[in-house]
Amino acid sequence: MSNHITKAFDADLQELNRMVAEMGGLAEKEIAESVHALTRRDTTTALKVIASDEQVDTLQREIEEKAVLTIARRQPMAVDLREVVGAMRVANEIERIGDLAKNISKRVLDLNGEYPSLKLIRGVEHMGTLVLTQLKRVLDAYAARNIDDAMEVWKRDEEIDAMCVSLFRELLTYMMEDPRNITFCIHLLFSAKNIERMGDHATNIAETVHYMMKGEPLTLERPKADTTSFAPVGIQG
Amino acid sequence: MSNHITKAFDADLQELNRMVAEMGGLAEKEIAESVHALTRRDTTTALKVIASDEQVDTLQREIEEKAVLTIARRQPMAVDLREVVGAMRVANEIERIGDLAKNISKRVLDLNGEYPSLKLIRGVEHMGTLVLTQLKRVLDAYAARNIDDAMEVWKRDEEIDAMCVSLFRELLTYMMEDPRNITFCIHLLFSAKNIERMGDHATNIAETVHYMMKGEPLTLERPKADTTSFAPVGIQG
Repeated sequence: MSNHITKAFDADLQELNRMVAEMGGLAEKEIAESVHALTRRDTTTALKVIASDEQVDTLQREIEEKAVLTIARRQPMAVDLREVVGAMRVANEIERIGDLAKNISKRVLDLNGEYPSLKLIRGVEHMGTLVLTQLKRVLDAYAARNIDDAMEVWKRDEEIDAMCVSLFRELLTYMMEDPRNITFCIHLLFSAKNIERMGDHATNIAETVHYMMKGEPLTLERPKADTTSFAPVGIQG
Repeated sequence: MSNHITKAFDADLQELNRMVAEMGGLAEKEIAESVHALTRRDTTTALKVIASDEQVDTLQREIEEKAVLTIARRQPMAVDLREVVGAMRVANEIERIGDLAKNISKRVLDLNGEYPSLKLIRGVEHMGTLVLTQLKRVLDAYAARNIDDAMEVWKRDEEIDAMCVSLFRELLTYMMEDPRNITFCIHLLFSAKNIERMGDHATNIAETVHYMMKGEPLTLERPKADTTSFAPVGIQG
């Protein structure tokens, strides 16, 4: 790349990274607020999250557009090209995380009556906290291009899967004890599943960091705590 | 674009379209087979679907790679650029549909005992058939660049959402009648949700056809039959 194109490309890449960071911050907020809304049945916050997700969707489209134009104009190659493609992929993952948070918030609007079990709520809250930490860490790793930190996030996803399996078992027991618990428990089941899937997307971002630095996809079998023989209603998806 | 680049670009675009069509065919097969496996508790077919999803994931990465290289090499503009971006977006949507089919198949492996209700199974089967039709139609619309056909698919998604709400209500009733039904019904709940989400992705493909032909995103509010006041466990996600 000639010098003036390099400068222009660097500016494009810097802007792309800035946009991804902005998107990441919004998604982190959506996770925190949607879990908060769920555990406190806070419909005001839930509505706020639902409305804010549009901004995340818009940023994803803008990042895709800018990435595509950067590729067409600067014709980057090798690691430069992977940086731009990496930004597009991370934006896609963050957009999906935002959707999952929005869906949890939509459930809050449907909740009726009191929560029969504080223990189960704490379980979902704990999963949410864990996933938020994972997302923050992987976005830091992405910004720093730190492959070791990214791989740490990748390995820790197993913990979230295990929590989900455990929570599912508890919810199942609770539903069987009393049919009046069923509706509430189903909301928590789906919310827990959404949080577990947020964790999967954080792992995908870690894999993108690996791709950007190493040039080829991570081929290792992702650590999964999904032991289906113990999970009658599994966490398959 | 100069003449030889136009020819080269046309060849690239043709190959991209071919790859998307191949991917679409595989996803259609995954939908048909995963719903079949679920309704007949056919673990052999379920395992086949799970294994075949890798091919869909690989194609998505290959399409992204080819699209990116096409943009860098040919520097397409306007409608040409939208065609390439369109192929990438459609590939992303098909990849997600494949994942949803794979997740339904994974549930089949966890099923124990007989299905207590044929009616509920037929309900899920019917949703699956509807969604498969939607996907076939929207992929045909994409291949033909037919915006009217794409918009028909977009409008009909409402039907799938309504079926999902109705099925959820029936499943809820069934669970409350007898706690022994709970595990089985939860598998169907999640499977129905996955099928409803496949429908959403088919709608996203319709929106991409609109984007490719018109150049700007569809801003109409997507028709949703998600009447949360009637759906205690909603179809929010």
